[in-house]
Amino acid sequence: MHNDTSMMLNADDLIIQALHEDIPHGDITTNSIIRNAVAGEVNLVCKQDGIIAGLGVFERVFKLLDKNATFESACKDGDVVHEGEIIGTVLADVRVLLSGERTALNFLQRMSGVATYTHRMVELLDGTGIKLVDTRKTTPNLRIFEKYAVTVGGGHNHRHNLSDGVLIKDNHICAAGGIHRAVALVKEHASFVRKVEVEVETIEMVQEALDAGADIIMLDNMSPEMMAESVDLISGRAETECSGNVTKERVAELKNIGIDYISSGALTHSSAIIDFSLKNLRFV
Amino acid sequence: MHNDTSMMLNADDLIIQALHEDIPHGDITTNSIIRNAVAGEVNLVCKQDGIIAGLGVFERVFKLLDKNATFESACKDGDVVHEGEIIGTVLADVRVLLSGERTALNFLQRMSGVATYTHRMVELLDGTGIKLVDTRKTTPNLRIFEKYAVTVGGGHNHRHNLSDGVLIKDNHICAAGGIHRAVALVKEHASFVRKVEVEVETIEMVQEALDAGADIIMLDNMSPEMMAESVDLISGRAETECSGNVTKERVAELKNIGIDYISSGALTHSSAIIDFSLKNLRFV
Amino acid sequence: MHNDTSMMLNADDLIIQALHEDIPHGDITTNSIIRNAVAGEVNLVCKQDGIIAGLGVFERVFKLLDKNATFESACKDGDVVHEGEIIGTVLADVRVLLSGERTALNFLQRMSGVATYTHRMVELLDGTGIKLVDTRKTTPNLRIFEKYAVTVGGGHNHRHNLSDGVLIKDNHICAAGGIHRAVALVKEHASFVRKVEVEVETIEMVQEALDAGADIIMLDNMSPEMMAESVDLISGRAETECSGNVTKERVAELKNIGIDYISSGALTHSSAIIDFSLKNLRFV
Amino acid sequence: MHNDTSMMLNADDLIIQALHEDIPHGDITTNSIIRNAVAGEVNLVCKQDGIIAGLGVFERVFKLLDKNATFESACKDGDVVHEGEIIGTVLADVRVLLSGERTALNFLQRMSGVATYTHRMVELLDGTGIKLVDTRKTTPNLRIFEKYAVTVGGGHNHRHNLSDGVLIKDNHICAAGGIHRAVALVKEHASFVRKVEVEVETIEMVQEALDAGADIIMLDNMSPEMMAESVDLISGRAETECSGNVTKERVAELKNIGIDYISSGALTHSSAIIDFSLKNLRFV
Amino acid sequence: MHNDTSMMLNADDLIIQALHEDIPHGDITTNSIIRNAVAGEVNLVCKQDGIIAGLGVFERVFKLLDKNATFESACKDGDVVHEGEIIGTVLADVRVLLSGERTALNFLQRMSGVATYTHRMVELLDGTGIKLVDTRKTTPNLRIFEKYAVTVGGGHNHRHNLSDGVLIKDNHICAAGGIHRAVALVKEHASFVRKVEVEVETIEMVQEALDAGADIIMLDNMSPEMMAESVDLISGRAETECSGNVTKERVAELKNIGIDYISSGALTHSSAIIDFSLKNLRFV
Amino acid sequence: MHNDTSMMLNADDLIIQALHEDIPHGDITTNSIIRNAVAGEVNLVCKQDGIIAGLGVFERVFKLLDKNATFESACKDGDVVHEGEIIGTVLADVRVLLSGERTALNFLQRMSGVATYTHRMVELLDGTGIKLVDTRKTTPNLRIFEKYAVTVGGGHNHRHNLSDGVLIKDNHICAAGGIHRAVALVKEHASFVRKVEVEVETIEMVQEALDAGADIIMLDNMSPEMMAESVDLISGRAETECSGNVTKERVAELKNIGIDYISSGALTHSSAIIDFSLKNLRFV
Repeated sequence: MHNDTSMMLNADDLIIQALHEDIPHGDITTNSIIRNAVAGEVNLVCKQDGIIAGLGVFERVFKLLDKNATFESACKDGDVVHEGEIIGTVLADVRVLLSGERTALNFLQRMSGVATYTHRMVELLDGTGIKLVDTRKTTPNLRIFEKYAVTVGGGHNHRHNLSDGVLIKDNHICAAGGIHRAVALVKEHASFVRKVEVEVETIEMVQEALDAGADIIMLDNMSPEMMAESVDLISGRAETECSGNVTKERVAELKNIGIDYISSGALTHSSAIIDFSLKNLRFV
Repeated sequence: MHNDTSMMLNADDLIIQALHEDIPHGDITTNSIIRNAVAGEVNLVCKQDGIIAGLGVFERVFKLLDKNATFESACKDGDVVHEGEIIGTVLADVRVLLSGERTALNFLQRMSGVATYTHRMVELLDGTGIKLVDTRKTTPNLRIFEKYAVTVGGGHNHRHNLSDGVLIKDNHICAAGGIHRAVALVKEHASFVRKVEVEVETIEMVQEALDAGADIIMLDNMSPEMMAESVDLISGRAETECSGNVTKERVAELKNIGIDYISSGALTHSSAIIDFSLKNLRFV
Repeated sequence: MHNDTSMMLNADDLIIQALHEDIPHGDITTNSIIRNAVAGEVNLVCKQDGIIAGLGVFERVFKLLDKNATFESACKDGDVVHEGEIIGTVLADVRVLLSGERTALNFLQRMSGVATYTHRMVELLDGTGIKLVDTRKTTPNLRIFEKYAVTVGGGHNHRHNLSDGVLIKDNHICAAGGIHRAVALVKEHASFVRKVEVEVETIEMVQEALDAGADIIMLDNMSPEMMAESVDLISGRAETECSGNVTKERVAELKNIGIDYISSGALTHSSAIIDFSLKNLRFV
Repeated sequence: MHNDTSMMLNADDLIIQALHEDIPHGDITTNSIIRNAVAGEVNLVCKQDGIIAGLGVFERVFKLLDKNATFESACKDGDVVHEGEIIGTVLADVRVLLSGERTALNFLQRMSGVATYTHRMVELLDGTGIKLVDTRKTTPNLRIFEKYAVTVGGGHNHRHNLSDGVLIKDNHICAAGGIHRAVALVKEHASFVRKVEVEVETIEMVQEALDAGADIIMLDNMSPEMMAESVDLISGRAETECSGNVTKERVAELKNIGIDYISSGALTHSSAIIDFSLKNLRFV
Repeated sequence: MHNDTSMMLNADDLIIQALHEDIPHGDITTNSIIRNAVAGEVNLVCKQDGIIAGLGVFERVFKLLDKNATFESACKDGDVVHEGEIIGTVLADVRVLLSGERTALNFLQRMSGVATYTHRMVELLDGTGIKLVDTRKTTPNLRIFEKYAVTVGGGHNHRHNLSDGVLIKDNHICAAGGIHRAVALVKEHASFVRKVEVEVETIEMVQEALDAGADIIMLDNMSPEMMAESVDLISGRAETECSGNVTKERVAELKNIGIDYISSGALTHSSAIIDFSLKNLRFV
Repeated sequence: MHNDTSMMLNADDLIIQALHEDIPHGDITTNSIIRNAVAGEVNLVCKQDGIIAGLGVFERVFKLLDKNATFESACKDGDVVHEGEIIGTVLADVRVLLSGERTALNFLQRMSGVATYTHRMVELLDGTGIKLVDTRKTTPNLRIFEKYAVTVGGGHNHRHNLSDGVLIKDNHICAAGGIHRAVALVKEHASFVRKVEVEVETIEMVQEALDAGADIIMLDNMSPEMMAESVDLISGRAETECSGNVTKERVAELKNIGIDYISSGALTHSSAIIDFSLKNLRFV
């Protein structure tokens, strides 16, 4: 991911877990056919246009299985790739190439899918000054991979989890008995290093959130008109986040309102993969 | 999933891992606002038409956080659900409802997405006698959830992993020096309780696989004509699996050929979620 | 800790790990002497004046060993306790009382030590409006317990870890080539939900941090005069944190300067325990 | 600790756990500012006089993050160190130096604190022939580090846990119905390779423990006079351990009595840290 | 085992777990006596005739403790070894040789015991064309080692676990209400890549299993006459497995019947070890 | 094992690991055939005479899978059981009975095998006053179960692992440069609560071990005459352990010599199982 420390501390366990999932007690086909160690190489080929993400994870799968494995590539995460393009070459024990292939591709394909989907939405927002951010609607146990892929695609990250960001939603407001009380309780109990974000649905709630001292105001399901009125009212005293449903048409409407961020769950929950495969295995 | 044993042995660790991912050291918003235990309930609402899958996992998230949590629902996995429909009601400590919501929904939405996508493909095959099966192109570390969701949608499972099914692919054939040698090596070394499947691309390979004693022959990237010729040649002496790219048009072509199985990676790697949310939280 | 969810998700694994550390293969003394299950109770007695913290963890140790264990007490976390006071009574299998005693007390004593030490420092700051906050100088693998104990003692929490708070230190500034560049890089790459804190040592650095848009400015090792000048310069445009060495004398100097927060590593790295013991075991 | 085997088998998991605690999903400050690998070095500087302990653990933190990291130092565990002294130099990827710093120091500071505190108590006992030993009043999940630090400071270890040493306390005696019965039960059920220690409070109990065949007798809360009488009575037939509260004054009283061991919980539960820091980071 | 991938993914965790079991907090004898690293070597000596199995696991124990450890041997798994034979030489830190010895030998001895016992039974079947297969009656948590050792001894593996092979037993038949129904339910719900095996006790059940489409029929506790009648009836339409109690006398009876497989739980649950030891340790 | 605390802390993880080994992703036969929860019961039947051990572990397997499972039995660990005897009845979800059967029996059979073998050796020593003790030659990762089974069979436990007992062997003596030096180093560095055992092969070594202050002397591979001479020389100043090869003939020779302990690796490494099975499953 960002560097070897993150990979070692935060990704390796999940990669090994995925390898265990796919190889609980040996790859019976490969182990039956190739009885001894023999070096080989294979090409990583792109089968669909997109933005590539996860090359480090892809490589790590093979390195974890064979510490002498190498991956040579002229590509890096974030590059545009095209159908038919040879992305690079993996060199390792042939049995490792065969046994690790699916797991390595499953990570790469999914991460590239998220990056590609994100990139398309970022392009829609091009020139608006609005930043696209992700949500917690990620695949269980894959959040670090998917949030990284969002940044590769040009998006930005919202909070990582419930422990490291404050977001006061309707149910919290209801439980607290109002926005003022909710914000006050959070400011009393949560660490002062956290910004306080409040989700609002009406102009009155915007005003209340402002008065309560919210750092970020999430405008939820508002019409463009109400959103514009909200941004006017806020007038720079808090950051503004528009939640959901970015489409070409909506972007046109939102363009000149002055929203800071748009968040989208679809980046991580509904992007299809970008297809890659390993081709032309040969002994070396 | 299928029963409590599977849930306890095979799903609980993954569910708790997902909860840790989202709550590494407390839900700061909820813990700041709701300082003491108080019972509440909330509705599970469907926001998109589809096939629901994962109700057991959804419920388990709350039960793992609060052993007294209950989930009442008239639905069961595999039911058709519609936008706006109230699926059921969760009763638990309000803090558990708020803190567990996202993780519970992330599982349910993804599993329902797989089931819905599968169901649509199964409908395309209706009346053909062909069974739809999944692949190993699943989300890393979510395979048991996704393979279960495929069955909920009316599909069937292929092998679960590299240790429990034999599939001899082009690279294995190349490494062995031919189909005969590859099948012989597998029959010598792998457990006799495994069927042997061989992936072939030409009529000559079909004949070789038959002669070698393959139990299943995967017809890979063949034209409908070549596939028909293959099925004729095989004539019931092996099961036949057609790999990939099921579309309405293709189904029409494949309908009368006599293929036994069609496998599709898209079931698990490219289905969008079905949206659900928790609404109308109230103290009880 | 704050609630059962936190206890279950974030504390149980650490408690069980501590029990394994102390009982890797049975308590040989207890198991030799008490061969069969027999219920008993024992008093938790305070042996030193202080603020108690960790009663939930103390109780959990016994409940994890014997799900029918109960702990009755009129005390709650944060109460002042005195030498000789009976805090409460644990009822469980006698073997569980004997085997779990040390682990339960080790947690309670340490957490109460942190709460007591914190409380004494908070009292020094009484009336100044300055909040006392902790640091990351915690005992490895005990952070959630110690940060909780700080709040019990009346302190507040700074960031929990390197992933959930930004603090730009001298080495970061040096690596970036200046405060402006460092803050800009963080604003580009880190989530927008994080406040940006910068550690400064001179008035020039204060000005730079302000210009760069820091949300929090940490005044490190400054004289009271320089600190006052800094607070004047900042004038509410950022929050201010004074790092280190709170003593009675220093508090007098800092009182009227207008600092928002004082952080202290000693809360968690140098507090002695508050002594408790289990006394008067009897069969019931 | 003692050697690489202990480090690998018994310490690495705890070190990595501590790194996860501090870096659950990347060091956001460092990763934002230093985007690519670059080698650097930094000095380990002592900020307080004491006995250093834990250099191997300190080094291991960096090696686990960057296998090419090196630590050069003229010091070894047990050396006297002084404020301002440069202890050594760590060379590694700059991001590893920044991200691993706190965890490495948290271990080193705490272990050095234990060693220093122990060493001061050992000096009090100098010339008495009495050995100072630790207890099970250690920090949960840090026992191997703290017990090692005790030996670095010149102390000795008592039993490691409830499974590997027998200590019959008042509650055990009460449960068994007397010292004879308690010792007999232990000799019947526990492994013969374990010494049997009995905690006593009166001269009568000393006699009983001797008669029962205790290998070690712990004299608990006795006056110097009673302790002297006990030692006379025991007369070398068992080893003697005096429990608790070693102060300068008491040492004078105990000096000529002939006690073998004094145990102290304070070594591990109430020692303040010795302060160290990483200074003068530079690219190389 | 079969290759480095299997060793790394499937064996290392179990080997390290065994090392933790034997060395939870340091080898006190070795660490007391040998205070510093010093290279040494020691011979692996066979003390009993047999078939050796587990050399890779034996070596791995030392490599996991000392990555520079080497094991030189002219032997390989499956070789016949004799009492007094020097099998090879391990070179490593002397402390690693001493601390790892027992764990390494415990694996090697047990695996060689299984291989030797298996080999003796395979010899009984020599010339009959019948293959000997193992069962799930393995030592808990050692299945991958024992099933591998069976193949080293010339045996073959039955299913690995309940998830990767179908075996319909009397209780399943009873629960389903008959063989037809049981087989139909399995064919409906289990993956089509699994063969279906049915356990039968009478000729009528053989006929039912055949009609239901069983791939393998297990003839349980049948007389030789009934077994012969069953094989005639089956006539190649299913594979046949004879369950249990292979003795010299029985083999004579079974020889000409035409059974395909004989399964034996004793291979893994009742084989005695083959004794090895490490001798002649010397510093190098 | 000894009590619920040991079971929960020290056995449950190993039992669940064994269940995962056997059911990585569902029992496909049972789950296909029995689609819904239904209560049933089954008899535990003994198929071979012996001493039963492990009933608690057997029961725990089912309780871990179904918290409402019950096991009724008139037997307890250590009872003599006979072929054909019904030991007890398990009541649980039928799917749990079928899926847990093999794992539960694998534990029970192996533990009963160890207890039975031990009991036979203990009977040989009847009337000699010599105690039979086990070794560290246990099955990797099953030590707690096997050492417990040895005590059920009437044997006693030697040290549990390398961390909790001192045994100075030939290689240690060689490394230290003599018995005196080895014992002195251990007394300096190891905890004083450990007895020091020395392995000797000659009368001279016996004398050296005595002089060095050994607590236990292991007489290794000595003739009965040399052993008698050793015991005379030791004359109660140390405990004596005879290592290995207990046979009827040897027992006669050893009977009157005055040895305290005989240790035997065969108890745990070469005992065959005692066979049990689950019979007569019925719905209730």
